Amino acid sequence: MKRPTILVLGAGYGGLTTVVNLQKSLGADDANIVLINKNEYHYESTWLHEAAAGTMSPESVRYDIKDVINSNKVKFVQAEVQAIDVTGKVVTTNVGTHTYDYLVISLGFEGETFGIPGLDKYALSMANVKAARQIREHIEYQFATWSTEEVKDDSRLTIVVGGAGFTGIEFLGELGNRVPELCKEFDVPQEKVRVLCVEAAPMVLPGFDPELVDYAVRHLNSKGIEFSIGTPVVEATPEGVNIKKGEDVFEFVKAGTVVWAAGVRGNRLIEETGIENMRARVKVDKDLRAPGYSDVFIVGDCALMINEAVNRPFPPTAQIAMQQGDMCANNIIALMKGEPTSDFTPDLKGSVCSLGDSDAIGVVFGKKVTGTKASFMKKMIDNRALFMIGGLGLTLKKGKFNLLK
Amino acid sequence: MKRPTILVLGAGYGGLTTVVNLQKSLGADDANIVLINKNEYHYESTWLHEAAAGTMSPESVRYDIKDVINSNKVKFVQAEVQAIDVTGKVVTTNVGTHTYDYLVISLGFEGETFGIPGLDKYALSMANVKAARQIREHIEYQFATWSTEEVKDDSRLTIVVGGAGFTGIEFLGELGNRVPELCKEFDVPQEKVRVLCVEAAPMVLPGFDPELVDYAVRHLNSKGIEFSIGTPVVEATPEGVNIKKGEDVFEFVKAGTVVWAAGVRGNRLIEETGIENMRARVKVDKDLRAPGYSDVFIVGDCALMINEAVNRPFPPTAQIAMQQGDMCANNIIALMKGEPTSDFTPDLKGSVCSLGDSDAIGVVFGKKVTGTKASFMKKMIDNRALFMIGGLGLTLKKGKFNLLK
Repeated sequence: MKRPTILVLGAGYGGLTTVVNLQKSLGADDANIVLINKNEYHYESTWLHEAAAGTMSPESVRYDIKDVINSNKVKFVQAEVQAIDVTGKVVTTNVGTHTYDYLVISLGFEGETFGIPGLDKYALSMANVKAARQIREHIEYQFATWSTEEVKDDSRLTIVVGGAGFTGIEFLGELGNRVPELCKEFDVPQEKVRVLCVEAAPMVLPGFDPELVDYAVRHLNSKGIEFSIGTPVVEATPEGVNIKKGEDVFEFVKAGTVVWAAGVRGNRLIEETGIENMRARVKVDKDLRAPGYSDVFIVGDCALMINEAVNRPFPPTAQIAMQQGDMCANNIIALMKGEPTSDFTPDLKGSVCSLGDSDAIGVVFGKKVTGTKASFMKKMIDNRALFMIGGLGLTLKKGKFNLLK
Repeated sequence: MKRPTILVLGAGYGGLTTVVNLQKSLGADDANIVLINKNEYHYESTWLHEAAAGTMSPESVRYDIKDVINSNKVKFVQAEVQAIDVTGKVVTTNVGTHTYDYLVISLGFEGETFGIPGLDKYALSMANVKAARQIREHIEYQFATWSTEEVKDDSRLTIVVGGAGFTGIEFLGELGNRVPELCKEFDVPQEKVRVLCVEAAPMVLPGFDPELVDYAVRHLNSKGIEFSIGTPVVEATPEGVNIKKGEDVFEFVKAGTVVWAAGVRGNRLIEETGIENMRARVKVDKDLRAPGYSDVFIVGDCALMINEAVNRPFPPTAQIAMQQGDMCANNIIALMKGEPTSDFTPDLKGSVCSLGDSDAIGVVFGKKVTGTKASFMKKMIDNRALFMIGGLGLTLKKGKFNLLK
């Protein structure tokens, strides 16, 4: 019997966990494992808000893929996936094509701007490490320019964050720490800086406990961050955003920086596969396979699973992506052995939303936590992801150990 | 007899040396010494090319004025000078007016764009620490943006430096070291980056020994820096610069960053005083007083002195400015005592032009030096300026001690 080829697309939390588990369980002769990724590095997409705010270097947010894969068992190909043909079983990249016996689609999320005019062009996003880095540089450039220009345009120092969900709030938390540093670094009086969060929904952090949400908003307010809730962004322009404050009531907010953190979707390539999807997310079978395709697994942000307890999709998190990666590797091995696959059930250990370096809110193992304790838990969660994929070595190299700051 | 008021405008090399010498020689009751400066800090204007390239932090380039003045003897006023009335003996600032018995004008240089269209608006300058910082941020933002944009605009990675004089060459030297770092930091292939120096004059570093100039050009070429000599910039636009390559031959160079390092002039306020001047520089009397004004001294970049040996003005250097500061303090004290003033003669110890962190060219005490040795001398010169103004403490705090790197 010929060795099967397992092709994994994307080295995010889901794809990399799949590969790491496959290389643990399979011998070098059991399968051809091929991992394709656009960059030679994995990045911590849950840390991007730190790189974007400038509280962490972009370099700290990523690590080389070759540091965590066993090159005797896994072939890494740096390439950009251009098309996925699930009927012909061929994946096309910018440097060649690949066939497969088992395919794992773990291509991650893209930003979603919901067709709001101008956002694609004039708002920055935290979609990847390069985009996050651009946000940091953009903000620094605005501050540097303000401090040198003769006629000061104070709107350069206004940062509008679209979205008060998890990403938006974590980014605001970092900005709360970063703005005083920026003011010092660039000789800007802090009262000139405005950070405004605009959210279309009538609430901050939907799905979070109201008491914790209240804590978060008070914390961010105390750092000077303003909220405008229930006010959709209707347009972005080179000068700022137009927001809808009520029936026929609009306000233009002039802002040097607009960051859009309000929506994610699956990878657009999914939409061209013919597999049924909603915004490029596929409602996968219980064993994580694409409906109707016995050799195609989908894990991570491109997989949609309904949480039947609340009849809503599970959020696209690193925690679930990594658990799916474990299960995906198990199920591929089961198929190789002719054994039945297992069903995936997320094991939700909790969720912690950072509010900056020394504060956070969350629910961990069913308990509400805030403040230093929550911040500590958050860093432990971040370190745990490193440990699960790269072991102790990677954790020591890239982990967060300013735990009691 | 009432205590005379000595008003010093500007805390650059010339002004600060004057004040430091006055406070050394005068008792607290001898005079009212008032120092007015726009910022609460002094910056090393000879180090600005490093802050601009990003090889040194802007913070390292400046120090607090209060760290070097004796507040029992000198009153420091942070204010921006708006007008100098040398007839009425009143200086107007944005926070009030000051009268004087002796005035020292040490307001430093401004950039000179020679009326070339667009340069004021579209080219960046290294005129001060904030402007240098903006150059660094501008370049980083261009690199960050290139690496994130879908359709790459390679001209973002083109840096045009206008001017192959001292400032231009020192900046290019730093860029030679910085570009590889930037490429690594922002995932940019180095062959995409272009650094081009455009100079109207037919030579690089006019006034320098041809053998040393040749060394400098070869060194910078080896770092990938191109030169276009004898080609004036005729216009700057938001997209780049138009250069004149010959009679009726023009070339447009598309560039994300244009830095103008080709000309300096004195402070514009001089032009409104009625004192005779050339581009805001005053041909001072031998004792450093403004012709016709017995109570007005001018030191540093606003003072023009002819080097009779070559019948050309001495260049505006920190070395001469500090020597003038010494003499200016002496002459004010002489006038207070009713004694005759002394003539100023520059004591030129040499000149070293940095080519980046570990290389330089120069003539020191009449000897030509290149390479590590010249680089060492350059750092010693930089440290000496710190020592002369702020003593050992400041030198240890702000000095350059990576001497043998």
